Amino acid sequence: MIVEAYGAHAGEKPLEPMEIIRRAPGAHDVQIDIAYCGVCHSDIHQVRSEWPGTLYPCVPGHEIVGRVSAVGAHVVDFQVDDLVGIGCIVDSCQNCEECDVGLENYCDGMVGTYNGPTPDAPGHTLGGYSQQIVVHERYVLRIRHPEAQLAAVAPLLCAGITTYSPLRHWKTGPGKKVGIVGIGGLGHIGIKLAHAMGAHVVAFTTSESKREAAKALGADEAVVSRNADEMAAHAKSFDFILNTVAAPHDLDAFVVLLKRDGAMTLVGAPATPHPSPNVMNLILKRRSIAGSAIGGIPETQEMLDFCAERGIVSDIEMIRADEINEAYERMINGDVKYRFVIDNASLTAL
Amino acid sequence: MIVEAYGAHAGEKPLEPMEIIRRAPGAHDVQIDIAYCGVCHSDIHQVRSEWPGTLYPCVPGHEIVGRVSAVGAHVVDFQVDDLVGIGCIVDSCQNCEECDVGLENYCDGMVGTYNGPTPDAPGHTLGGYSQQIVVHERYVLRIRHPEAQLAAVAPLLCAGITTYSPLRHWKTGPGKKVGIVGIGGLGHIGIKLAHAMGAHVVAFTTSESKREAAKALGADEAVVSRNADEMAAHAKSFDFILNTVAAPHDLDAFVVLLKRDGAMTLVGAPATPHPSPNVMNLILKRRSIAGSAIGGIPETQEMLDFCAERGIVSDIEMIRADEINEAYERMINGDVKYRFVIDNASLTAL
Ligand SMILES: [Zn+2]
Ligand SMILES: [Zn+2]
Ligand SMILES: [Zn+2]
Ligand SMILES: [Zn+2]
Repeated sequence: MIVEAYGAHAGEKPLEPMEIIRRAPGAHDVQIDIAYCGVCHSDIHQVRSEWPGTLYPCVPGHEIVGRVSAVGAHVVDFQVDDLVGIGCIVDSCQNCEECDVGLENYCDGMVGTYNGPTPDAPGHTLGGYSQQIVVHERYVLRIRHPEAQLAAVAPLLCAGITTYSPLRHWKTGPGKKVGIVGIGGLGHIGIKLAHAMGAHVVAFTTSESKREAAKALGADEAVVSRNADEMAAHAKSFDFILNTVAAPHDLDAFVVLLKRDGAMTLVGAPATPHPSPNVMNLILKRRSIAGSAIGGIPETQEMLDFCAERGIVSDIEMIRADEINEAYERMINGDVKYRFVIDNASLTAL
Repeated sequence: MIVEAYGAHAGEKPLEPMEIIRRAPGAHDVQIDIAYCGVCHSDIHQVRSEWPGTLYPCVPGHEIVGRVSAVGAHVVDFQVDDLVGIGCIVDSCQNCEECDVGLENYCDGMVGTYNGPTPDAPGHTLGGYSQQIVVHERYVLRIRHPEAQLAAVAPLLCAGITTYSPLRHWKTGPGKKVGIVGIGGLGHIGIKLAHAMGAHVVAFTTSESKREAAKALGADEAVVSRNADEMAAHAKSFDFILNTVAAPHDLDAFVVLLKRDGAMTLVGAPATPHPSPNVMNLILKRRSIAGSAIGGIPETQEMLDFCAERGIVSDIEMIRADEINEAYERMINGDVKYRFVIDNASLTAL
């Protein structure tokens, strides 16, 4: 089926309206009419070829929510009209150690929601800046939030699971002191999640102006990381720090805040390297620096259910599809609280 | 008591004979006649002021073995003539979270065996290049190896526990694939220990000439890390890599060999930073880079008992105290298999 979409024909060109083809649903496929799609920093990196290997036309978007409009003959868990979501993963090998334990995000054959290999035209996957998407049932998530929150649920599909998974893996909970570095699309959800998990949450920001906002989001404390005295007051005290900042920065300033056996986990990769971390800081307290990539499908469903039970959604600013280029510029300038979400109904009129 | 020792009066001077004072044993002290002392790279860094803050005169040595020659009135666990060892720790606060769980190595008040603060003259601790040492009973280890192996036990007190502790912490055992980077004083014991713990052990070396030696030490495989094809064959396959190399090097070459959730732990701090590790390698498989510092007193005893039961000792080359300056030069050139040990009886004749 031909559907309306918004994408780019080259890295240096703006996004514009285009028509794309979605396959007819196979036996295990779920066809989804997309209601909203969140806008992730990855979208910008990919569509602008700031990451290598971008294939054009490129239609970004991997924070997808909507309603099922058709299902394949063998699909039993989803019905037409169900509220569902698609995150960063639309396929994987389904036959490796990672897939077997529901960590499709770490499968070497994981297929991303855009720019991944597919037999469908045009040979690479096209994402959620579009009216419709067709995905194998394994990668479809159920949304149990009220429909009125649907747009604000969208960012949970990437920003939500990207922060939820490491928070859980490194055992965030009551009695733990957890830091969240960066209060943007990822960080603002990380604060909400860590707070809901029962941890003592400290938000780190570079700007004094975000201090109160961080507390409003659920942080018990907010620290301006440029203030050495404030930082020093937290030395050797954190069980875990989730670092959402992709820009190159001094990791040591946060590593020294970890207690013995503490870990700092990075969920953003810098375009140019961070200054090399001081190994002695790791040695002296058996600290770790780790990485984490989104999360598996079962854990994404767990995250969505966790958020639905607690009423957790993203703070969003809704835009029309034709405002996407402007939205990118504002994101690059940090001018969004905290996530843009495209109203995909705006694609109809184009 | 005045005893003979070997140390330096300044960073740029060679080590030479000197007399030092040991305190009379207090109620909880154990006085030890030192039989042998291993020679650690830390000794060189400290005595030559390659590390900041060296206090002179400096008497290095923290791989100490010998016999108890006197005990304080309240000492119950040790008697005169017992075979004992002293490692890198001679005191700690005894009153913090780390000390409470036997991780004195991570106590902020840990006092090193040399160059640490002490009320004894000359105000800083003096190490094992000496005839005798007096240490609080808490930091004295029992040696259950046969006396004939005593000299070869000495390096276990630093090199042994420095490798044993991270191997245990990161769950080395049957079914695990473990890498040991660097086949020197630390690495050669690391290979023996990981093998004894039941892991599949792969030794990494930069020189073809060490390949067979690594297998003789217990490695199941030996990889020359300069050989890209050999390295690639091990991609994404390691549960844990213990990296004993302090010289700055490309950490990414080893990180990519870790499987999902794998960790590489560094036990040496480079004088100048390693090239900054690639964060994407950490993110894509939830890998970690960590550090580890020696080990606590209970674990050091556990390690010594583990080694005694299995007949594990260091490969050593025995030297007289007056050969120490020459030995340092050979160590810097990697010309020792694999640890120098001073015969402290040689101090008597000086
Ligand atoms: Zn994303
Ligand atoms: Zn797979
Ligand atoms: Zn040492
Ligand atoms: Zn302590």
